[in-house]
Amino acid sequence: MGEIGVGMLGYAFMGKAHSNAFKTISYMTWPPPLEPRLVGIAGRDEQAVEEAATRYGYEYATGDWRELVDDDRIGLFDNGGPNALHAEPTIAAAEAGKHVICEKPLGRDAAESFDIWQRVAATGVKHLCAFNYRFVPAVRLAREMIEAGELGEIRHFRGRYLQDWADDASLDTWRFDPGEAGSGALGDLTTHVVDLARFLNGEIASVAGFAKTFLPGRKVDDAIEAAVEFENGSVGTIESTRLALGRRNAFQWEINGSRGSLAFDMERLNELQVFRADGDRARGFKTVLVSETDHPFWEHWWPPGHIIGWGDTFVHELHHMLRAIADDTDVAPYGATFEDGYRAAEVCDAILRSGETGARERVSYRSL
Amino acid sequence: MGEIGVGMLGYAFMGKAHSNAFKTISYMTWPPPLEPRLVGIAGRDEQAVEEAATRYGYEYATGDWRELVDDDRIGLFDNGGPNALHAEPTIAAAEAGKHVICEKPLGRDAAESFDIWQRVAATGVKHLCAFNYRFVPAVRLAREMIEAGELGEIRHFRGRYLQDWADDASLDTWRFDPGEAGSGALGDLTTHVVDLARFLNGEIASVAGFAKTFLPGRKVDDAIEAAVEFENGSVGTIESTRLALGRRNAFQWEINGSRGSLAFDMERLNELQVFRADGDRARGFKTVLVSETDHPFWEHWWPPGHIIGWGDTFVHELHHMLRAIADDTDVAPYGATFEDGYRAAEVCDAILRSGETGARERVSYRSL
Amino acid sequence: MGEIGVGMLGYAFMGKAHSNAFKTISYMTWPPPLEPRLVGIAGRDEQAVEEAATRYGYEYATGDWRELVDDDRIGLFDNGGPNALHAEPTIAAAEAGKHVICEKPLGRDAAESFDIWQRVAATGVKHLCAFNYRFVPAVRLAREMIEAGELGEIRHFRGRYLQDWADDASLDTWRFDPGEAGSGALGDLTTHVVDLARFLNGEIASVAGFAKTFLPGRKVDDAIEAAVEFENGSVGTIESTRLALGRRNAFQWEINGSRGSLAFDMERLNELQVFRADGDRARGFKTVLVSETDHPFWEHWWPPGHIIGWGDTFVHELHHMLRAIADDTDVAPYGATFEDGYRAAEVCDAILRSGETGARERVSYRSL
Amino acid sequence: MGEIGVGMLGYAFMGKAHSNAFKTISYMTWPPPLEPRLVGIAGRDEQAVEEAATRYGYEYATGDWRELVDDDRIGLFDNGGPNALHAEPTIAAAEAGKHVICEKPLGRDAAESFDIWQRVAATGVKHLCAFNYRFVPAVRLAREMIEAGELGEIRHFRGRYLQDWADDASLDTWRFDPGEAGSGALGDLTTHVVDLARFLNGEIASVAGFAKTFLPGRKVDDAIEAAVEFENGSVGTIESTRLALGRRNAFQWEINGSRGSLAFDMERLNELQVFRADGDRARGFKTVLVSETDHPFWEHWWPPGHIIGWGDTFVHELHHMLRAIADDTDVAPYGATFEDGYRAAEVCDAILRSGETGARERVSYRSL
Repeated sequence: MGEIGVGMLGYAFMGKAHSNAFKTISYMTWPPPLEPRLVGIAGRDEQAVEEAATRYGYEYATGDWRELVDDDRIGLFDNGGPNALHAEPTIAAAEAGKHVICEKPLGRDAAESFDIWQRVAATGVKHLCAFNYRFVPAVRLAREMIEAGELGEIRHFRGRYLQDWADDASLDTWRFDPGEAGSGALGDLTTHVVDLARFLNGEIASVAGFAKTFLPGRKVDDAIEAAVEFENGSVGTIESTRLALGRRNAFQWEINGSRGSLAFDMERLNELQVFRADGDRARGFKTVLVSETDHPFWEHWWPPGHIIGWGDTFVHELHHMLRAIADDTDVAPYGATFEDGYRAAEVCDAILRSGETGARERVSYRSL
Repeated sequence: MGEIGVGMLGYAFMGKAHSNAFKTISYMTWPPPLEPRLVGIAGRDEQAVEEAATRYGYEYATGDWRELVDDDRIGLFDNGGPNALHAEPTIAAAEAGKHVICEKPLGRDAAESFDIWQRVAATGVKHLCAFNYRFVPAVRLAREMIEAGELGEIRHFRGRYLQDWADDASLDTWRFDPGEAGSGALGDLTTHVVDLARFLNGEIASVAGFAKTFLPGRKVDDAIEAAVEFENGSVGTIESTRLALGRRNAFQWEINGSRGSLAFDMERLNELQVFRADGDRARGFKTVLVSETDHPFWEHWWPPGHIIGWGDTFVHELHHMLRAIADDTDVAPYGATFEDGYRAAEVCDAILRSGETGARERVSYRSL
Repeated sequence: MGEIGVGMLGYAFMGKAHSNAFKTISYMTWPPPLEPRLVGIAGRDEQAVEEAATRYGYEYATGDWRELVDDDRIGLFDNGGPNALHAEPTIAAAEAGKHVICEKPLGRDAAESFDIWQRVAATGVKHLCAFNYRFVPAVRLAREMIEAGELGEIRHFRGRYLQDWADDASLDTWRFDPGEAGSGALGDLTTHVVDLARFLNGEIASVAGFAKTFLPGRKVDDAIEAAVEFENGSVGTIESTRLALGRRNAFQWEINGSRGSLAFDMERLNELQVFRADGDRARGFKTVLVSETDHPFWEHWWPPGHIIGWGDTFVHELHHMLRAIADDTDVAPYGATFEDGYRAAEVCDAILRSGETGARERVSYRSL
Repeated sequence: MGEIGVGMLGYAFMGKAHSNAFKTISYMTWPPPLEPRLVGIAGRDEQAVEEAATRYGYEYATGDWRELVDDDRIGLFDNGGPNALHAEPTIAAAEAGKHVICEKPLGRDAAESFDIWQRVAATGVKHLCAFNYRFVPAVRLAREMIEAGELGEIRHFRGRYLQDWADDASLDTWRFDPGEAGSGALGDLTTHVVDLARFLNGEIASVAGFAKTFLPGRKVDDAIEAAVEFENGSVGTIESTRLALGRRNAFQWEINGSRGSLAFDMERLNELQVFRADGDRARGFKTVLVSETDHPFWEHWWPPGHIIGWGDTFVHELHHMLRAIADDTDVAPYGATFEDGYRAAEVCDAILRSGETGARERVSYRSL
């Protein structure tokens, strides 16, 4: 099997999640499309990045991401850095001919996101915006059921991403710095909701909503509320907040169609709620434990019923990227490309505009 | 104990629910504030109303509600008729000196609702708009917890009322007739969501949303979507639909505050989900079975854990009205008055206006 | 429609539940098979029974149940008294030609239960042992599904009835008096589990188990544990306790067959969990809200999704008895007869014997 | 940090799970107590074991486990082979001075299990019987709560392990061969239930139960049912089956004490249900998502709410073993030793004896 050199930017939350995935791919997906070789890892805190290199097995650490871009052994650049560091390194890596992965949100707003997409697309490399929740088995199963028409015509999508960790005014990370993060719950959580809304139900046509900041002194939004209409005529709501006490990672969505409904909660990510209007006298939502041999991604794992974890979704995601590189297949539609990253940003920007103008905003998308 | 004569308009769904409640109050609430005497029942279909009188034990049936208004033995007029029949009979009964109950929505829009409120209030009788969900024990418990400050400062209210019975274009009842019903999911379901939003979280300041009709030929809305802001600064969403397949009576709401959260689903109306940010290492949402001796309304019922049904909420509601009449106490704040009926209508109208103008609409309320 | 005079023994928990049911039957089941006329109510505390007569509308109260037995206007004698008062009044009423209902457990042991059955059966009246949980819609639906073969061959039944109210050594009611009650959790809860086990899965062939008393000074059992085998070859467990903190009325059972499984919890009595081995890729347990127009007993109630309560199960049960009287049809198999009451007692006695002998005990049943 | 050479016997289900854990420990637990070096892997199918060596990164593969025993570079022998291969290789490895891990059941019956324990204990090496469910965070949290007295005096433990994969008479693996497996559900599932029963609630004093085989031609038990008493006086049931359709890996247990209760389901292994009798008006079972920074094992993983999977429990387990080796600390009480493996076997044997004799069997344990 072939090998691909990986260069990682970032060693914290996403650096850990992606590094674990690359290491796991080597043996849990068998044979892997390409053997990931962990070449270099970059970060601002030199001591921390040195330790990360040792810990995860990167051949070297560096304080300068440009070193990764210049390293010919690296064929895949994976950007897990803060949002402000998405654009320049990702574009530089692509322009150096490396395939690129960038964490979400792609850019800090639609303009920056478009720029990243445009410049990376021009290079011809593979690009993946790391909306890992597309790679939850239950989410992929939902997508497959919808594509097969099992829900009929879709009428509703309602999604909310509820967390509560930010209810502390003393928190001081880049995630609360408008320059570093671009936004608060919007870029962090709403982008996920928008991406799955698009993944499952197609493009969003218009939004009516707003951002809200609760904590004194906080410079980014704490919560986002919006009523939305999709291009297929379905309607619903999109919400996100980091102040819903008791909800730790509750990315919940529900979709209702003319033949059935689906519902999901990330805190129980192995389960999909499925309703079929099939006339069964015993009708109701099924709790499907998405861990069967004929379920998505399950060929990599355990006997049915032996559930997987949040970290394992990255195994599926990065495996998909390696497959695309190895076989020169498209990242889309099951993986999110930079175009998807850009389109999510357009919806997010439209929500902010709606909040500012007080008007329902149509979402329009630029093409290359 | 005293007695009060009851005149009922309507013999179908709500007529059955209210008649059952009056009969049950006589012995399940003990002693009842007033003994309800079922004097007369009115309805358009004379044969059906005759049968209803026999069934529920009314002394007579009539095809003309004015007969009830003119009957001096009747001290309480209960209007469970179609929406178009709310205004005239209710006002007439009040002007004849009878206390009045009117099913929700109070009127078909805010203007009609205001008119009913204004004219009834002028008479000095007691008036109750039958938002029975205020009388679910779990909802009352939630209200009491919020009033006691147990949730702290409220940040979010999200409510959705999901049903699926209207997914049939051949259905032909007054509920799909704009003249009879005034609206679709809006008056039927959204009013309930708005009323509990107000009951639990105070006035709604602005709405950004719209109505949607899916079924060809349908003349009323099938669904309502809105992002909302409350006067207390909290934000959230309000949704309702009669096309969410698999959801039969899923009136679900969640409220997040700075000290805790609550969540509820009418399909499990005996349960309240309670999260307290109390520092317990074992933290999470409790499933509270609201059936303890120290829980609201439970003095009327069974030993703890022996759950009640949807129909029993009307026992609590009408008992509350009889108590207000017997003791000359206020229907508010635990019962909904006609002012509450009117205010819910203002919010509903604002959602429709927002859908038409495309602008976020402030909600303003008229006073008497 | 005809009328039947009802004489009630007992005015507390079961007296309230049965009286409510008779009053509700008059109009919620329409037309009722017979109109119940509440003639007389008997109890030991004369003041309390007088108040109960006023409250529930009995024509008279009496301190002596023999007065009911002697009253020719009474055609149905309903025994909701303490266990020690089941035998003599019930037999006397039957021998006076009255149809009889007796609360569970029928007698305080199998011998007494057999005697009641034998002597009542000899009179030819209708007899119903008030195992009301057969009349939970979800339980009846389960029975219908099993009868129709939808589960295939049954392999397992596991049932447990968990409450926690008895965790207080100071409690002093007839339920803790061996003479009055006969036993503790055994007669109170285990009989229910055994009855539904038999109702859903047929006769129990053998038991290996024991009783346990935890609280110092308590003279009846607090808990029952048993491994059981059924005549059809299926196996499982039967448990009951009044010391499972946090479980208020958790009568939970699960049944597994070769084509599917069912599960149930009385704290969510409107729901049945249904698994079908039907090859659907989206497989799992359905949460069926048993409230559809084609579900058992639902013709009496509300639109789908508007759930009923624990007290409503008595409406179904007593309606079934009135139907059997009116039409001279059998109480069995959907209602429990005194034979069912006796057979449950045989299983309970066998568990006690097993605890004493340390041996697995076969259950044998006497015939008339 | 030090290094330890690992020799693995078995390359299928458990070989994969353990190999993944060793590889993950290297970086997810940081720093690991010892760096596991994957030296050799043994198995009967030479081609398959060769592939496994390549896949998981063992330095060599062999068809003869004795080669591992003779390899001085190996300091830890991990036996994930079929049950019939537990005794000889494990004893040989220990006698060669290697620390040993053996999958459950330790032996095929109590006698063989005792022999393994006795002979391994005599060598002085560390030994761990791989009851991995002790290392589920929710299970460890339960243990810690019970140890701290948060449940008070325990009254009940009920445990059931329900699977359904064996409902196919054509299945032909070593798990259905009495010589290879020793037993069916008993050794496979009941041992797990017994181990957690002991882990959470102490020794089992007596059992009354039996084994059952349903499928024609099957030579091992399909299901186990037992009523049990513990040495602390608490009582309950222990069940296991591989024929509970719809239950995929439903290892469910509940424990009730005088101050609270806990409940758990392995299909939702990140959650612990917690009831505290603390007098809160809002009382009920909490759904605790066991993923907080102060929860067991969570220092290795992700931010709260980002759940882990079944496979990750092995990371905790093997990390515990490496820590015990590195620091010369005891495997007990949080890890299961071979004594625990033996004691579980005594309980299992007692259930079989009870089924044969029809008598309640006391469990007695041999000492070294």
